[in-house]
Amino acid sequence: MVERVPCKHQVVGSNPTLGSNLAQNQMVTFSKTFEVKSSKRIQSVDITSEIQKIISESGIKDGIITIFIPHTTCGVFINENWDPTVQEDIHSFLSKNIPQNGNYAHTEGNADAHIKTAIIGNSVSIPINDGKIPWGTWQGIFLAEFDGPRKRKVIVKIIGVK
Amino acid sequence: MVERVPCKHQVVGSNPTLGSNLAQNQMVTFSKTFEVKSSKRIQSVDITSEIQKIISESGIKDGIITIFIPHTTCGVFINENWDPTVQEDIHSFLSKNIPQNGNYAHTEGNADAHIKTAIIGNSVSIPINDGKIPWGTWQGIFLAEFDGPRKRKVIVKIIGVK
Amino acid sequence: MVERVPCKHQVVGSNPTLGSNLAQNQMVTFSKTFEVKSSKRIQSVDITSEIQKIISESGIKDGIITIFIPHTTCGVFINENWDPTVQEDIHSFLSKNIPQNGNYAHTEGNADAHIKTAIIGNSVSIPINDGKIPWGTWQGIFLAEFDGPRKRKVIVKIIGVK
Repeated sequence: MVERVPCKHQVVGSNPTLGSNLAQNQMVTFSKTFEVKSSKRIQSVDITSEIQKIISESGIKDGIITIFIPHTTCGVFINENWDPTVQEDIHSFLSKNIPQNGNYAHTEGNADAHIKTAIIGNSVSIPINDGKIPWGTWQGIFLAEFDGPRKRKVIVKIIGVK
Repeated sequence: MVERVPCKHQVVGSNPTLGSNLAQNQMVTFSKTFEVKSSKRIQSVDITSEIQKIISESGIKDGIITIFIPHTTCGVFINENWDPTVQEDIHSFLSKNIPQNGNYAHTEGNADAHIKTAIIGNSVSIPINDGKIPWGTWQGIFLAEFDGPRKRKVIVKIIGVK
Repeated sequence: MVERVPCKHQVVGSNPTLGSNLAQNQMVTFSKTFEVKSSKRIQSVDITSEIQKIISESGIKDGIITIFIPHTTCGVFINENWDPTVQEDIHSFLSKNIPQNGNYAHTEGNADAHIKTAIIGNSVSIPINDGKIPWGTWQGIFLAEFDGPRKRKVIVKIIGVK
């Protein structure tokens, strides 16, 4: 049913969207922390435009961005930001399988949120090309609130060249 | 049943495979995008050798590589590339718990693929030591196709020193 | 039930813990590999203090740290390191849904550990600000042992400025 196949690929070096590039300008870092307020217990908050604004502010055209959530009941992930039912399905699946009122050892009422965070993760790193994240057509980045409503921090670091 | 124990470790600074190193040569970036064609709806495509070729082409000996999948129904992960039953078990588990024909709000027939992608993730960052990823014996890196067959892009960025 | 809301945030540029910063000193890399011995089959090993020691040793004040586990039955994740019941709940959930003695194609008795590793992941990248990871109040980083007891390697790479 499942096969491991050799990768069939093509590499086109002279195409800026499908090729390779080596940059040797001086490398810099850029750091920014911002806050997000969630309004429900379970919620996907689209932070795509905030992330792009930070990249633009940094002036970095070519590098890596790391987005880190300094919380234990809240994660970050990439998926579709066009049809909101996609986000609804992701949260419905998680909450059906990891219900708030399950039988847990942690007795603060948010054990489900810790488990969901461990599975979704709270750090993502993405390339920056030409001053932007090379998003796919429908992609965006979301703070995954699992125990809101709360004020949350998003810590961003960029390393790259201008 | 589960214990949190203090870490028992040893650090041997003079051993090249178990130790530390500080590099101060000029840092560069290297970028490459390539395509992968999956041939089934659910499939692990081994891209380990393609990734190594890109690292070799970059000339970067010491740094970090970020591998990003610009799609919302396709992820990337690291696991065993020796026994293909490991990949089969991973996909079987996901498809049993997140079936294609489940009860979803998203009505395009691929809600399962979005959920699987959110759980597996579509970005991975790994150290480069001595011009290679320091893979464990059985490790490889896979594009996780959840809604193929399709043509997929893999976007790679390396930052490091030559 | 689930909403995608626009991000309500504030950015305070002059606050060192909530703002932005651009650094242009010379960038360096720092590499270290250390070992961890797990003592049970299923176990969260807190490696937070080891990671901080490596950052301090590097002298890097501002950058990105990538922590990579070169194994296929052992991962790494971030979550609460205060109340040990949180770790217990995470492992209980995984083991209940992915039992060791399930019906798997891989016949080495550790198919569950491979699946758990694919879901939790074996690489994490985090910003370094002011010579430290900007942890949330309760956060720590754990090696997730799914097939111990074993000796495991943790491979660390830091890129940044001193």
